Amino acid sequence: MGPDLSGRLKELSGIVKESELDAAIISSPRDIEYYTGIKLTGDAAFLIVNPKSKPLILISCLSNYARNLKTASIKFFSDFKDIVKEIDCYKTMGFDEKNTSAEFFLRLKKLGIKMKPFRSSIKKPRMFKDDWEIMQIKKAIKATEKIFKDVKIVGKTEQDITTWIDRRVIGMGLRNSFDPIIASGINSSYIHYLPGKRKIKAGDFVIMDIGVRANGYCSDLTRTFCRRPSKRQEKVYGDVLSIQKQVIDNARGGVGFDALEDFSKKLYEKMDYQRMHSIGHGIGMSVHERPVTGDTIKNGMVFTVEPGVYIKNWGGCRIEDMIQIKNNKARLLSTFTRDLTLR
Amino acid sequence: MGPDLSGRLKELSGIVKESELDAAIISSPRDIEYYTGIKLTGDAAFLIVNPKSKPLILISCLSNYARNLKTASIKFFSDFKDIVKEIDCYKTMGFDEKNTSAEFFLRLKKLGIKMKPFRSSIKKPRMFKDDWEIMQIKKAIKATEKIFKDVKIVGKTEQDITTWIDRRVIGMGLRNSFDPIIASGINSSYIHYLPGKRKIKAGDFVIMDIGVRANGYCSDLTRTFCRRPSKRQEKVYGDVLSIQKQVIDNARGGVGFDALEDFSKKLYEKMDYQRMHSIGHGIGMSVHERPVTGDTIKNGMVFTVEPGVYIKNWGGCRIEDMIQIKNNKARLLSTFTRDLTLR
Repeated sequence: MGPDLSGRLKELSGIVKESELDAAIISSPRDIEYYTGIKLTGDAAFLIVNPKSKPLILISCLSNYARNLKTASIKFFSDFKDIVKEIDCYKTMGFDEKNTSAEFFLRLKKLGIKMKPFRSSIKKPRMFKDDWEIMQIKKAIKATEKIFKDVKIVGKTEQDITTWIDRRVIGMGLRNSFDPIIASGINSSYIHYLPGKRKIKAGDFVIMDIGVRANGYCSDLTRTFCRRPSKRQEKVYGDVLSIQKQVIDNARGGVGFDALEDFSKKLYEKMDYQRMHSIGHGIGMSVHERPVTGDTIKNGMVFTVEPGVYIKNWGGCRIEDMIQIKNNKARLLSTFTRDLTLR
Repeated sequence: MGPDLSGRLKELSGIVKESELDAAIISSPRDIEYYTGIKLTGDAAFLIVNPKSKPLILISCLSNYARNLKTASIKFFSDFKDIVKEIDCYKTMGFDEKNTSAEFFLRLKKLGIKMKPFRSSIKKPRMFKDDWEIMQIKKAIKATEKIFKDVKIVGKTEQDITTWIDRRVIGMGLRNSFDPIIASGINSSYIHYLPGKRKIKAGDFVIMDIGVRANGYCSDLTRTFCRRPSKRQEKVYGDVLSIQKQVIDNARGGVGFDALEDFSKKLYEKMDYQRMHSIGHGIGMSVHERPVTGDTIKNGMVFTVEPGVYIKNWGGCRIEDMIQIKNNKARLLSTFTRDLTLR
C-alpha cells in the first residue's frame, strides 16, 4: 500500500481540463511530490500537467540523481530557455500564484502565455486524505505524543527543551515539521515565539507547540503545562479546553470553515477573552494547507483545532489537536491527555 | 562588537535614494534580519525603507513577541489592508522580484504603485563582509570542520551519517544550513543527492557536502573521502584539487566572476572532464548569495570554490572551500586538510 499517485494525477488532470486550461505548471516541491512521488533535494523543479499527455517534471540539472517515474517523465534544465522549450506550445496555463515569484511570472507572461491563478485547484485534491495518508499522519502524531510524554520541563530553559526535542526527533529518524515553540511564563503570552534562555519554574504556564514529519506527512500539536497552577491559570486552561471541545463538536460535514470560525469567536466573546488568531488550519504534507476560509467541511479533511488565550504581561495557554472528518463527524486523531498539571 | 546595523541601513537607504525610488519593500527574512537585527519566527514580514524616515517593519500579528528596535519601528498587520495603509503613500517602490509572489506583486501593482525589480540592490551590501561577519562565518566553518574530523564513514550507511551529523550539529547548539549530502560509491556521480541506505565500503568515493549556521552566518564545505582509492580515484581527486587550487589562485580583486567561471571551464576541458556545475557561489547569511554572474570580485567578498567531476555509472568527487577576498587576494577561510584517504 502506498500513495495513490495515479488517482491524484487523474483528478488534477480533470480539473485542468474542466478549467479550460491547456496545462498547469506546478512549482511547489510538496505538490510535485504529492502528484508524482518524486523526492526533491531543494533544487528548482516544475511539474507540467496537460490532460492530453504524460506529466512532465522539469528539474534542475543539479538534481541529476532523478530518474523517470511511473507517473511522470523527467527532463533536466540548466536555464530558462530549456523551460521555455517545453511550455511555449501552451496558450493558457494555470499556475500557483503564491508559489511563483513575480520574476518567473513576468517571464512567462512575456512569452505570450496567458497565466491564470490556479493555486486553489492545485491544492484541492490534497484536502481529502485517504486511509494511507491518515496512517502517515498518525505516525507523525504518535511520535509527537511520545515527546509530550517524555519531556522534562521544570528547571530547564526553553532552549534546553527545544534542543532535547530536536535530538529526540532525529533519534526517531524523523524531522521537525517546524521549529518547536516553547514559551514559558510571561513568554506564553506570545502566539509565535522564539525560545530563549528563560528557566522554567513550577508555577509557569509552558506552551509547547511541536510537530514532526513522517513519510512526508506532518503533525502539529500544542499542549500547555503548569506543574503548580494558580486558580487563574486553572480557570484559563479550563476555558480554552472548553472552547476546543465545543468547536470540535461543531466541526461537522457541511459546515463552512468560516462558520466554525464565527462559532469560536462567539465562545471567546462569551468568556470575555480577546480572540488573537484563527481556530485552526488544514494539515497534511504541509503544516498549513486547505481547508481554509471559504472551504466547506467534508469527509476526508484533516485540520487542527487550536484555541488560545494570551494575556499581556501575564501569560497564555493554547491547546491544539488534529481532527479527521469521518462520517461527517470530527474524530480526534491526537489522543494525548489534555492535563494541565501532567508535567 | 556586533553587526553594524545602522551602517547597513544607511547604505541601503542611499541606494534607494540614488535609484530614484520613493521606498523599497523587502520581504526576505534574512534581508530583514541583516538590516534591522530582528529574528523572525517564520511569519510574514516586510521591511519598508524610505530615505526620509525611520525604517518600518510590518509583521504578522501572530509574531506579537516583536518589540520596536533601535533600527526600526514595528507595526503589526492582520490582513492586506493593514499593509496598504503603510505603503499607499508611495508612487514607486523597489521590490525583491524573486522573493515576492506573483499574487502579492499583482496586488501591489493594482494599488497603482509602480513596482521596480530591486533585488540585486537589496542584496548588494550583504556581499561585503566586515570583520564581525567574518568572525561568525569562521565559527560556522570551525563547527563543520569538527564534523569532518570526527565522522566515521566506512561500514555506515549514508543515512546513518546524516543522522550522526544532525545530532552533532544540534549538540553544538547550531543548525544545519542545508540538509547534509552524503553520496557514496556510484551515488557520488550525482551532484545533489538524497542520502539513502547504501552501506559504505573502503573503496568508495564518499562526497560529504555539509554546512551549519552560526549566529546567522553559514558554512558550506565539501570533502570527498576514500579509504582505499584506486589509481583512477586518486587521479580524479588530484585533478579536482588542482582545478580548485588554480581557481583560488586566480580569484583576485578586479576579476569578473564570469571570467573566473571561464577560467575553470578551460581547466576542465584541458583535463577532458565534463563541467557539470558552476565553480562557486557567494555565501553569508544565505548559503547562496551574491557575488554571482555579472559581479566583479572585490575585497570583503566571501565565496565558495567547489570544482567537481562526476562520471556516470562510476562515481564522482567534489572539493569545496570558502575564501575571503582580502588585499585583492583570495584567502582560505576553511583550512581542513584536503586528504582523500583521511577517513
